[in-house]
Amino acid sequence: MQEIRDVILARAERLQAGDAAGTQQHNAPEVVEYTLAPPLGGPADGRDPKPLEAWLAGFEAPPRREVTHLEITADGDVAFATSIDSMSATPKGSSESFTLWYRVTLGLRRIDGRWLVTHRHESVPFLMDGSFRAAIDLEP
Amino acid sequence: MQEIRDVILARAERLQAGDAAGTQQHNAPEVVEYTLAPPLGGPADGRDPKPLEAWLAGFEAPPRREVTHLEITADGDVAFATSIDSMSATPKGSSESFTLWYRVTLGLRRIDGRWLVTHRHESVPFLMDGSFRAAIDLEP
Repeated sequence: MQEIRDVILARAERLQAGDAAGTQQHNAPEVVEYTLAPPLGGPADGRDPKPLEAWLAGFEAPPRREVTHLEITADGDVAFATSIDSMSATPKGSSESFTLWYRVTLGLRRIDGRWLVTHRHESVPFLMDGSFRAAIDLEP
Repeated sequence: MQEIRDVILARAERLQAGDAAGTQQHNAPEVVEYTLAPPLGGPADGRDPKPLEAWLAGFEAPPRREVTHLEITADGDVAFATSIDSMSATPKGSSESFTLWYRVTLGLRRIDGRWLVTHRHESVPFLMDGSFRAAIDLEP
């Protein structure tokens, strides 16, 4: 469990340092990705830093990351982890920062003795009032 | 694996039959729920059928469910499953049906010999064009 927790916190810490490759060294070569942005998602190259670098380039500085309510369920070489996370950042060219809280589920496998992320699901819910707006202002 | 697949398909089939309690008999007593609707989510009573019954009552008939791209990762007594699902339904009082495609991650544990859902994460992504609209018209 501690090893898995370390992987999850190290990923957040590396992202916060603006280190795309360092974040992704904890990924398996293939990751099923369901991210905040379209499309719906599916299998993706877990080690290609270019999409993450491009995403980081959209901010004045790497986002501050927080991981809360982390719960890990593991047996043998398989685990999943749930958490309520936040990122705080200032979009490039903007003078205003935002903080977004979102839900995270990670699936992990121990491969050659190392716990690696094979699945990532990040989301916010959406309003059921007919507006279909993403609920980007929720707090845990 | 087959046993876990059976649980996942049985849940979808029970929901499609409008059977809230039958859907939830595959849940653990406590489930970490990150659902399509606010709030962000967290631990919930996995066996209380009232919220699901209330949800079902919002439609003319129980939604038609489809489970696609199902992938299951399991070891020992822990598993997680990813899929791209759809629900098709007609809101009560409406003459128009909709089909919504969304991402699903389930976390499962084998408890007393039975695979039970202990985590459910369902979501759609949202548009990164400044509109913050949920992307409810995506297809796999």
